[in-house]
Amino acid sequence: MRSLIVSLFLLAAFNLCSAQTAEERIKELGIKLFTPAKPIANYVKAVRTGNLVFTAGHGPGRADGTNIKGRLGDDLNVEEGYEAARVSCISLLSSLKAEIGDLNKVKRIVKVTGMVNSTADFYDQPKVINGCSDLLVDIFGDKGKHARAAVGMISLPSNIAVEIEMIVEIEE
Amino acid sequence: MRSLIVSLFLLAAFNLCSAQTAEERIKELGIKLFTPAKPIANYVKAVRTGNLVFTAGHGPGRADGTNIKGRLGDDLNVEEGYEAARVSCISLLSSLKAEIGDLNKVKRIVKVTGMVNSTADFYDQPKVINGCSDLLVDIFGDKGKHARAAVGMISLPSNIAVEIEMIVEIEE
Amino acid sequence: MRSLIVSLFLLAAFNLCSAQTAEERIKELGIKLFTPAKPIANYVKAVRTGNLVFTAGHGPGRADGTNIKGRLGDDLNVEEGYEAARVSCISLLSSLKAEIGDLNKVKRIVKVTGMVNSTADFYDQPKVINGCSDLLVDIFGDKGKHARAAVGMISLPSNIAVEIEMIVEIEE
Repeated sequence: MRSLIVSLFLLAAFNLCSAQTAEERIKELGIKLFTPAKPIANYVKAVRTGNLVFTAGHGPGRADGTNIKGRLGDDLNVEEGYEAARVSCISLLSSLKAEIGDLNKVKRIVKVTGMVNSTADFYDQPKVINGCSDLLVDIFGDKGKHARAAVGMISLPSNIAVEIEMIVEIEE
Repeated sequence: MRSLIVSLFLLAAFNLCSAQTAEERIKELGIKLFTPAKPIANYVKAVRTGNLVFTAGHGPGRADGTNIKGRLGDDLNVEEGYEAARVSCISLLSSLKAEIGDLNKVKRIVKVTGMVNSTADFYDQPKVINGCSDLLVDIFGDKGKHARAAVGMISLPSNIAVEIEMIVEIEE
Repeated sequence: MRSLIVSLFLLAAFNLCSAQTAEERIKELGIKLFTPAKPIANYVKAVRTGNLVFTAGHGPGRADGTNIKGRLGDDLNVEEGYEAARVSCISLLSSLKAEIGDLNKVKRIVKVTGMVNSTADFYDQPKVINGCSDLLVDIFGDKGKHARAAVGMISLPSNIAVEIEMIVEIEE
């Protein structure tokens, strides 16, 4: 009888664990979402249409306003690019949360387009954009598995290292 | 009594002003939309699916068939790039009107992707693509405020200065 | 009377011909779709949301795992680029079929974005991406006519020649 109770307890604990929400996981990872800076031009950070949200392209801007700048294959190595993609992802999720209020409403990360500031002979854009993809799957699990493009750009605004945009499906 | 009449008049004038339609504003700006040239390949200028319209990438082609060509950071300066983005926007709106019949049906400009023909050290893509964004907000007001990406391309078809595409939500 | 029968027969034959399905046309063209390789990162080849499928960016990877690599304007000419776009299209259709089960469910190819590994003075991205567009229209007829962007990239993953992504509307 006691072992049954223990088993049920463990099962409940496991379910609780596997049912961890996106918001809980973000907190557990120690990630601080922030209020997105107001765009300095006639555009916005995210637009919802029906149950899809289309985000603007987001660079690796941190809450304090600093950015990760430089070109992959020259100024930055893959690890630094990976970190830039991770920071861009946090910025994207900050804008998404500002738009929908609660990241637990995310039904699916549909598409990620990762544009990497690259030299002509830098071919590891996928390893860079993994910094965004890995975080999305860590936070959202299977709902975070997205279609993706990762490509090289000759230049990006203010020489930022990456610019990433997303399409996200939201619970109705 | 007279001040009441004046107030009502001003209120009516204000409402009239704020209620100006997209088609009226286009006319007021002296912008001439045109019949889009037929694509010379197996694609079309715009496709509607549900209440979204996805446009093709549009360059700065004018009604007379001329184009604005050249690379930002080399052949063209920011002001010339801004003008190219504005011309591309007029071309996009021409194709959109051909698809949906009436631009007053636009519910929201959802997304703009602005691809700028750039040198490796040109970092002002946002200032260039403002030429499109500013016109959209001028014409559509808050409905024109879109999510946006602005990035640098090593080359564009026929060496055009910019190529811009849009996703637009239409009234059902 | 005999001429009426002949006419009816020809009419029926014509209808049959024009009613050829996408799956039949793929078979007739001798195109072998294949099981897409599992992505080596935290992303997937296609995501369906509502009646839209967004694909990942696909390169010119063949069923045997080989790829068409090189830069247009340098390593590859337009004909080789066209072939690379055609091979990418077959890869895209393979992933699409894996996602939706039957390509006859395609209601419309909505959007194609063709990213071409290019030198700074290569301007024929449209002629390259025609390798994908032509095949889509050959297979799907009017349903295959899509909005399209064709642009030049400074570099692509593993130095592949093109990377193409699609948005596809599916019968509900």
